[in-house]
Amino acid sequence: MPDQYSPDAPRVDFRVHPSRYRHWRLACDGPIATLTMDVDEQGGLVPGYELKLNSYDLGVDIELYDAVQRLRFTHPEVRAVVLTSGKERVFSAGANIRMLASSPHPWKVNFCKFTNETRNGIEDATASSGQVYLAAVNGTASGGGYELALACEHIMLIDDRSSAVALPELPLLGVLPGTGGLTRVTDKRHVRRDLADYFATKSEGIGGQKAVQWRLVDEAVPRASWQETVAERAAELAGRSRRPAGAVGETSRVGIELTPLTKTRTDAEIFYSYVTARLDRERGVVEIAVHGPETDAPGDGVTAMHEQGADFWTLAMTRELDDLILDLRTNELELGTWVFRTRGNADRVLAHDRLLLDRGDDWLANEIIHYLKRTLKRLDVTSRSILALIEPGSCFAGSLLELALAADRSYQLSGVFEEEDPDAEPAAVTVGPMNRGPLPMGNGLTRLQARYLGDDQGLAEVEKRAGEKLRAEDAERLGLVTFAPDDIDWEEEVRIAIEERASFSPDALSGLEANYRFAGPETLETKIFGRLTAWQNWIFTRPNAAGPDGALRRYGTGQRAEFDRKRV
Amino acid sequence: MPDQYSPDAPRVDFRVHPSRYRHWRLACDGPIATLTMDVDEQGGLVPGYELKLNSYDLGVDIELYDAVQRLRFTHPEVRAVVLTSGKERVFSAGANIRMLASSPHPWKVNFCKFTNETRNGIEDATASSGQVYLAAVNGTASGGGYELALACEHIMLIDDRSSAVALPELPLLGVLPGTGGLTRVTDKRHVRRDLADYFATKSEGIGGQKAVQWRLVDEAVPRASWQETVAERAAELAGRSRRPAGAVGETSRVGIELTPLTKTRTDAEIFYSYVTARLDRERGVVEIAVHGPETDAPGDGVTAMHEQGADFWTLAMTRELDDLILDLRTNELELGTWVFRTRGNADRVLAHDRLLLDRGDDWLANEIIHYLKRTLKRLDVTSRSILALIEPGSCFAGSLLELALAADRSYQLSGVFEEEDPDAEPAAVTVGPMNRGPLPMGNGLTRLQARYLGDDQGLAEVEKRAGEKLRAEDAERLGLVTFAPDDIDWEEEVRIAIEERASFSPDALSGLEANYRFAGPETLETKIFGRLTAWQNWIFTRPNAAGPDGALRRYGTGQRAEFDRKRV
Repeated sequence: MPDQYSPDAPRVDFRVHPSRYRHWRLACDGPIATLTMDVDEQGGLVPGYELKLNSYDLGVDIELYDAVQRLRFTHPEVRAVVLTSGKERVFSAGANIRMLASSPHPWKVNFCKFTNETRNGIEDATASSGQVYLAAVNGTASGGGYELALACEHIMLIDDRSSAVALPELPLLGVLPGTGGLTRVTDKRHVRRDLADYFATKSEGIGGQKAVQWRLVDEAVPRASWQETVAERAAELAGRSRRPAGAVGETSRVGIELTPLTKTRTDAEIFYSYVTARLDRERGVVEIAVHGPETDAPGDGVTAMHEQGADFWTLAMTRELDDLILDLRTNELELGTWVFRTRGNADRVLAHDRLLLDRGDDWLANEIIHYLKRTLKRLDVTSRSILALIEPGSCFAGSLLELALAADRSYQLSGVFEEEDPDAEPAAVTVGPMNRGPLPMGNGLTRLQARYLGDDQGLAEVEKRAGEKLRAEDAERLGLVTFAPDDIDWEEEVRIAIEERASFSPDALSGLEANYRFAGPETLETKIFGRLTAWQNWIFTRPNAAGPDGALRRYGTGQRAEFDRKRV
Repeated sequence: MPDQYSPDAPRVDFRVHPSRYRHWRLACDGPIATLTMDVDEQGGLVPGYELKLNSYDLGVDIELYDAVQRLRFTHPEVRAVVLTSGKERVFSAGANIRMLASSPHPWKVNFCKFTNETRNGIEDATASSGQVYLAAVNGTASGGGYELALACEHIMLIDDRSSAVALPELPLLGVLPGTGGLTRVTDKRHVRRDLADYFATKSEGIGGQKAVQWRLVDEAVPRASWQETVAERAAELAGRSRRPAGAVGETSRVGIELTPLTKTRTDAEIFYSYVTARLDRERGVVEIAVHGPETDAPGDGVTAMHEQGADFWTLAMTRELDDLILDLRTNELELGTWVFRTRGNADRVLAHDRLLLDRGDDWLANEIIHYLKRTLKRLDVTSRSILALIEPGSCFAGSLLELALAADRSYQLSGVFEEEDPDAEPAAVTVGPMNRGPLPMGNGLTRLQARYLGDDQGLAEVEKRAGEKLRAEDAERLGLVTFAPDDIDWEEEVRIAIEERASFSPDALSGLEANYRFAGPETLETKIFGRLTAWQNWIFTRPNAAGPDGALRRYGTGQRAEFDRKRV
């Protein structure tokens, strides 16, 4: 397997379209969609492995992510999604082992992060869009295959005396079921911890009624009644979905096309319509600029938003930001600091926010807000240092203020750049309704709440100033920004911050940020990215898994792994 | 530095007494105790480093742990503890860097675990015993030095223009402030996350009023008024302590001596009075037996308990278990599975529990319960697989049932061993009041609640059966034990479970158990052992820290670390 990080390795592209899927089939039939996994063995993203038994690699998951997104935007009539396999007697064997075994450490970690995000996205579609996922496990679901089912609201397992669900990672590979498996088994499905322990050591898994009794699945269904029961259950879930019914055929019920992103990508720059990034390899920095809306929010509200579709500013900007995050995270590992700026008109940002929030039960507005929420969450779990620079001409307001609140540090210029534009309006930040609830972090807190954790008074003072354009002195005093240097100090202070960041251990920074960003409560989601992922990353570095005699490398060779038996 | 795990390396002994302290001075003056850190540079536990600037190693922390324990048992009149430094102008430089840099990975991890437990114990003394800790930071507190202060209820920093608090781990060593530092800064002291970020990158730290403003310390006090203010604050804290006042001099107010443990330790066995362990190196197993009380609980209640002192069964057993856990964890890394059995009379265990719980506000009963709680928590975070075998003649009831509930799996014999003792009373387990609140896990749940997470009905059914001696069939049906094999299957089922465990990757088992054992909510404490520790462990394995050119190894050599700049 070639090193994915060699200079001539092709970049991973996250843009895909159903017409080009190699591994999935998406079929919609009124309120029920069926998403069929039928992995092309020869369709691996990188040469060197075959994707047998519906095992998957990043390429398979990129398509899954695309399908889940398109269901939400292009198929608003869908209220239940059946996730099933197109193979005979196998649902999915999980992440491809040869791919994992031969991947460098950062690839493994990045791959797991993205697959985790996609599975969280499936749960978010169920919870926030009323597109309820049903896992129709029509053959054995192993490892990541079962973890995919775990992300669904309801799991049906075919009861044929051979199909089972299993988490064989520990006994076979010496790693964890790290795509949420351990956490969801206990915290979501409430499998008793000792049974869960036994289950995760039994590589052949558990099927039939025992799987139901242990809560590993919701029902076991004989082959004879399988199709019928799946259809029945899908109809029930669609019926129970909290998705507003609306009238099919109404303009506002018609889906919008997620048109191809316009993206220019070179070694030095990435350009979209509203988002641009300059890649500074020497300093290890990406300078990202997010541009606000170029026009006022449409006066006729949601109708115009539906007409604009993928061109509606918030959606367009979010899609671009999402793609940029994924591109940089996967393809640009050595650019360790992301510096965010915004350019544009704060009032227009706030007006777009308002349009989305005054939405009634409009499905598209709902989708756009949740998509922005998920994209900001992606930023939160990104292992890059994030700085926000708040300068004159910027529009850190409402939804875009979240970028500054997601940053590890923010700098707001006090006054103006005297040489550049002495008459400019000084930089301001504005708290809006988008900062006060609709865009929570994975831990359930808004970024403002996380910022003022344990400081209710500080939070209340900031919220009282909502809608005000707060200049640097005010913003600093209120604790909305980290530092507020003036023109004289700005350049050096920012330069030192960036240079310093580049001088620190990249690993220690990842650990630091993964702790500080998630102060306060934990949820299923943050436990997956915190506790579970951190342990898995540790295991991935250990010779017992990834060394030449480790279980992950030895799997399939007929040779047993050799373990250092010390417990750590 | 010698390999601590070479066969001829001396075992670490956790038994110590104030008369033999090399690094601490403990002085009690009525309700105020002063614990002075004055580390003997030449007193390292292992040769190869000097403990300069009040830096510490495991040996220093073993004494600290002992002091905190003795304060709670031997000095019940103490209501506030001043933690300070005996050095000029330095509070503590934290964990000794040369020690860390030259330690093998398991030693680092074990060391951090114990220091974390000791700091949690300081917080527990404050919260549960009303022995309130005051950090009198009379010089710079760096890294683990500041983390020690963070475990205290109130932090005073001397304001002399040079003393500061600092977390220099990231910039200087490429590792995290992993002894709770990152978590306590944001989650306990509510330092704003961006300020916390800046603070953790500034190796020289922050002192004076800025440290107060940023909430890093509670007050900064000029040298001139230092002694006086420390005394004042200690008196205030003692006054505010919720510790029941009682009358000093009353029998029940007199401390008890934690007499030396009787312990026999060979390569094959460890014996105490109530706890025995057989070390089976071939199978990688420790067979631990905990013996119930040999007599009935004293009829005259707490008075007799005070008279028995360290001989009172619950306390004696807990001290032995505590010492055993520490001994095995540190000295026997390759014994990966701990098998717990109990022997004795369940009614006597329950009677001892009752005596402790019907305590009114007796300080000693309170201490014993909290000590048992902490010891069981130590078990929860121990990276060994834990099995419980429930056989005829056992006494898994109340406080001892917690051992089975803490286990990753439990096996209860259905019926009796026909050949061994056909007339025996079949094994039973009994839920008692100790299982329903007084002994929570780190996540705030009782082990029963964690077991029945999301299954309120199951929990209610079990609680309804409290006091009943539940035989295997009942216990299995209720979900109190994992499996209930009969005489015919017992031997093989248990043998396979143990052999299988020994065949798995030790690292993957640690990760599995660290996830499953902490289903449900997270707290400051579980975040420290989960999120923070797991990230730190990962960083400890990475070349950027621990490799020959890594920051931890290069520190003090005058050479800069060389980093692989990929962000993972």
